[in-house]
Parts: sequence; structure tokens; C-alpha cells
Amino acid sequence: MLATLMYGAGDVRVEDVPDSVVEAPTDALVRVTASCICGSDLHPYHSMPADSGPARMGHEFIGIVEEVGDDVATLRSGDLVVAPFAYSDGTCRFCREGLHTSCEHGGFWDGLPKEGGQAELVRVPLADGTLVKLPVAADSALMPSLLTLSDVYGTGWHAAVSGGVAPGKSVTVIGDGAVGLLAVLSAKQLGAEQVVLMGRHPSRTDLGREFGATDVVAERGEEGIARVRELTGGHGTHVVLEAVGHRPAYDQAYGVVRPGGTISRVGVPQYDDAPVGFDSLFGGNITLTGGPAPTRAYVEQLLPAVLDGTVEPGKVFDRTIDLVDVPEGYRAMDERRALKVLVTP
Amino acid sequence: MLATLMYGAGDVRVEDVPDSVVEAPTDALVRVTASCICGSDLHPYHSMPADSGPARMGHEFIGIVEEVGDDVATLRSGDLVVAPFAYSDGTCRFCREGLHTSCEHGGFWDGLPKEGGQAELVRVPLADGTLVKLPVAADSALMPSLLTLSDVYGTGWHAAVSGGVAPGKSVTVIGDGAVGLLAVLSAKQLGAEQVVLMGRHPSRTDLGREFGATDVVAERGEEGIARVRELTGGHGTHVVLEAVGHRPAYDQAYGVVRPGGTISRVGVPQYDDAPVGFDSLFGGNITLTGGPAPTRAYVEQLLPAVLDGTVEPGKVFDRTIDLVDVPEGYRAMDERRALKVLVTP
Repeated sequence: MLATLMYGAGDVRVEDVPDSVVEAPTDALVRVTASCICGSDLHPYHSMPADSGPARMGHEFIGIVEEVGDDVATLRSGDLVVAPFAYSDGTCRFCREGLHTSCEHGGFWDGLPKEGGQAELVRVPLADGTLVKLPVAADSALMPSLLTLSDVYGTGWHAAVSGGVAPGKSVTVIGDGAVGLLAVLSAKQLGAEQVVLMGRHPSRTDLGREFGATDVVAERGEEGIARVRELTGGHGTHVVLEAVGHRPAYDQAYGVVRPGGTISRVGVPQYDDAPVGFDSLFGGNITLTGGPAPTRAYVEQLLPAVLDGTVEPGKVFDRTIDLVDVPEGYRAMDERRALKVLVTP
Repeated sequence: MLATLMYGAGDVRVEDVPDSVVEAPTDALVRVTASCICGSDLHPYHSMPADSGPARMGHEFIGIVEEVGDDVATLRSGDLVVAPFAYSDGTCRFCREGLHTSCEHGGFWDGLPKEGGQAELVRVPLADGTLVKLPVAADSALMPSLLTLSDVYGTGWHAAVSGGVAPGKSVTVIGDGAVGLLAVLSAKQLGAEQVVLMGRHPSRTDLGREFGATDVVAERGEEGIARVRELTGGHGTHVVLEAVGHRPAYDQAYGVVRPGGTISRVGVPQYDDAPVGFDSLFGGNITLTGGPAPTRAYVEQLLPAVLDGTVEPGKVFDRTIDLVDVPEGYRAMDERRALKVLVTP
């Protein structure tokens, strides 16, 4: 089968590898019908040492179940399924609380050295807990929007829910990538009154306005902070959704959050230490929250509005490529020629 | 009048200074009947440069109103009042939300160079918003417990409320100082099922048990973390209340918090940067919250149980001294010979 391997920073290849197979009785083997490249895939694309790979890539996919292990009860061959970016048993104490990313038996795709979504086949562990059946055909026009349930829509939603977005709240979203834009959409769905989108790519921020942003701030750093404060009566916003993961975004976040407010991070932090002292978080009773989104927890909740067309999160995809062209997909996203790239087999 | 001045680390003196007076029409002049020394006063006692002072000390006091400015409407001469550790107008948007420490016109006592609670007289700005009348006489036996409403009880309560302590939750309290012990009491009042107190002074942790701690862990660092995990099925507790303010306490906090849990800090951080990346906070969706407690917001709520004796937060005071002996009070607290020192004129 074909699969995507990253050999180091800037070095992505599609190669022929041994077919994935069912290994455990709780596995399902899924033939991928749609996958995509994530903004978070660009982090190793910038920094991965050449001698640490190759690594299988891709953690967002939809596909058709080809085979299931003996203990899989809820799925059968032929089912169309969406996979969240973490696998989980659905039954442990953390899954029952909706925190599937902390599942006692689960993990992330990058913990499975022979699997990845940017491929033809994927072995999915804990299939009953992980996969969700989709009530459409694999060629449905809804496919781009359904694919966002794997990660980017669920992640934007997690940011907004964790941040306590609610009717009447003001929100700043930092980052105009797919997650940032879907955090805008989520904040709007949750009733936010003002949604300030910080981003500087007009084609993206235009989509942000379509998703519900009331203001766009293109400036960054101190200038950007001053602009958001201007737009919010000098105080900043109740909630800040940080969808980037770099330190400057963190610093921007505590610069624009209102006293008593919340910074909700879903951009995977590319830093360890950051200011948490009196002048950044403590003095203003700022809450810092967020983490890897348990997107599995949100699929059933977000699915109806996707199916009936109330929301179209799939608008974040602005390019579709074949699996063999994935290296060009990475280049296009890295050079900001594409917002988010959908991959078909 | 006599007042306490800190000239530098380890150098506290009680000196004769000009009497405080009413300066603004919204001021009240209060003759102090009871004040105290705070664990947070020990931070400058350890680190204050000799050339930056002298600084007036004390931010917790009860006293009798001696004079009010022309615009003070709710208080009159002779009223017995308690002062929170921050003054606030009680009317701005933040006060109305219960975040009096972010009052648009308020501040902390250490921002007033000529005032402090460890003195005979204090000028209290924004008196209507700041002071709360107490329905007892100045010689009431309840005085130690009422004085904790200034800071330590309200601060422990703020930690627990901000951390989301609720029935069925497990809680770790880091620190067996007055705030930590009253965080234990608050967690118990809010229905916590398990309250693990991390502290290594038996006389203090005994009081912690009396206040509701179900377990005491004397070990610190990695050993302490392992012990708390042992006591909590390997997962840590839903909530961690950090009542110390030093970096090791922060590191301990993310070591003992459960995935999806909350660290609530009320110890004033003596550090700026700390780990917030994937391995500390982000990966487990840990929430970091807390800050200076808006104790003014909690006085009316906490007062009834103090007045009727349901709770006795004043048990944290284990020594009473005269104002002239305040330097010895600092030494006693610094050397852990006293938990918390009450000061009478």
C-alpha cells in the first residue's frame, strides 16, 4: 500500500509499504477514502531531525471498514467511518468523562509506528470506541465537512467549550489556520457576541468573517494587542482561543485577555516554559486551559448540523490532491498557498 | 501613630510615623483593633533589597471607624469593620462580577506608601466599597475567625471555588500555612470527598485534619507526587489547590493533578516562567487558574458560619502579640515557631 513518510524537516515521501492488517481482535482495518494534512503536521515538517525518522503521517481520515477483529461488535465490513485523531476504548473513566485523549488504553496515531491517515489503509485499534459510522455514502458532497470532525472542527469546538464561550461573551481567536477559523465558527455557534479574529491572510480572514468573526486584526505582537484592546473598551476579551502553538501566540493571548478571563489553547505548544506569574496570568485571575481535543467526544453532537448543512466547516479545504501528491500538499500548506489540503486515494 | 516598616530583607521595625488622615471624600479612617502577619509578608522578608524601602506592612485588619469623608454613605464613626486585602469601589464592572482585585479604581495596600494594616490607624480608600460592618463588639471572642475574612479564609475559599471543588471531587492542597489549611476547610465545606494535605509540620497538618483533610502527605517533590498518586488510584486528584507560591509547589501541582483536572493557585508566584507545555499542562488538558482572591466578594457568604461557630478559621492563629512586638512576630513565623500571628494595638 502507499503511505506517507516524513524522513526529516521538509522531507516528505509517499512510498510503498507493507499493507496494514488486523493485529488485535479489537482492531478494524480501514481503507481510506479521504484524509488531509494538518497544521500540526507542519511542526515536524519544520523541525524533525533527519535521523529520527521515517515517521508515518496523518491523523485525520474517513474510510470504509475492510475487515474487523473478532471482538469488534459495532462495525462491519463496508461501513463508512470517521476516525478522531486519537484512538480510545470509549469505556474507561476518562472516556466516560469525555476526555478520550487521556484514555487509559488509547493513544495518538504517531504512537503507532506503522500507521497513519495519509495512506491507503490504516489499522485502527479499539475500533468500537474509536470509529463513528457516518450515515452517508463515501462520495457524498458533505465529505470535506465530515472530515473536519476528525480533528479541526472538533478541536476548534474544544477550544471554545473549554474556554467557556457562551452567549454574551467576547472572544479573541488567535490564528487563521483551519483550527482558528473553526474556533470562530464554534464560538459563533455557542453564542459569542464579539469574535475578534487575529490573522493576516485576507483569504482566510474573509472565511473567518463568513464563519462569524465580527472583527479582524491583522497586526501582531504589541500592535495587535493594542488593536484588540481598542476594540474591546480597553479590557480585552472574556475568552481567548489560541490556535497556533508558538510562543508569540501565547504572549499575545495573555495580552488580550480580560481580567478574570480564560485562555484556551488547542495549538500544540512548541515551547515548554512560558510566563505564568503575577504580570501575565496570576494578577488578573486569568485561567489557562485547553489541550488535545477529545474530538471523539464531540462527533455525535456536531454531526447533525453538518449533515443538514447548517454549518459547512469543510470550507477550510481549499485544495484537493491525490495521495501520491502529498509532498506537494505539505509544500503548499507550508508556503501558505493552501489553507488545508484534502487527500484522496 | 505606630506603624510597621520593612527596611529590607529581615529588617522589620515598628516606628512612630505621622497619623493617617482622611484625604479623599470617599476615605474612612480606621483605628485598628486586630491585624496580623501574612505568609505573603514573608516573601519580601526574604528578598527585599535594603535600598528599596522602607515599606509599610500589613493588609489584613479589623478596626473601628474613627472618621469618614463627606461622600461615605454606609459607614459612620464607631462602626466595627473588616478590611479585605484589596480596596475596591464595589461598583465597577469587575466588582459587579465579583473580581474586586481587578477593580478599575481599586488597588492593594502595598500600592499606598503611607498605609498598612500593621499600624494603629489606616486610611481606607473607597470605604463604602471596601469595608464590611461586623455585627459584633470589638472584644468578641470571634475576632480571630472574623479577621481571617480579610485574607486567609477568603483566599483559601477562592482557591477552592476557582478550582471547581464540588461534592465527590478529590482535592490536593499544597502547603500547610494558614491559606493551605483554610483551603482544606473550604474544600470540605464545598463537599470534597478526598482532601490530601501536603505539608510536613505535624502541628499544622493536625489542624488540617481537624479542618477536613482525609490524608496527609509529608513527602515533597517526586516522592510526594508518588505518594499522592498512590492515594488516588494512580491518577492524581481532580483539583489541586496551590497555597505556597514557590516553583517547587507549582511543579508538585502538575505532578499530582488528574487528567482533565484543575490547578488553582493562590500562593503569590515567586517566579515568572514555568512549564505549560505538552508534558506538564497541555497533554492532560490541565486547567491552571487562580490569582489574588477577591476576598471582598466572599465576606457576606462566609460570615454566617463564622458568626454561628459552624467553622472556626481563626484556629490558624497560634500566637497573639502587641503591635510593638511585630518584628518578633515576623521572626516567629519565618522560623516556623508560629503558624500565624495576630497583632493587637
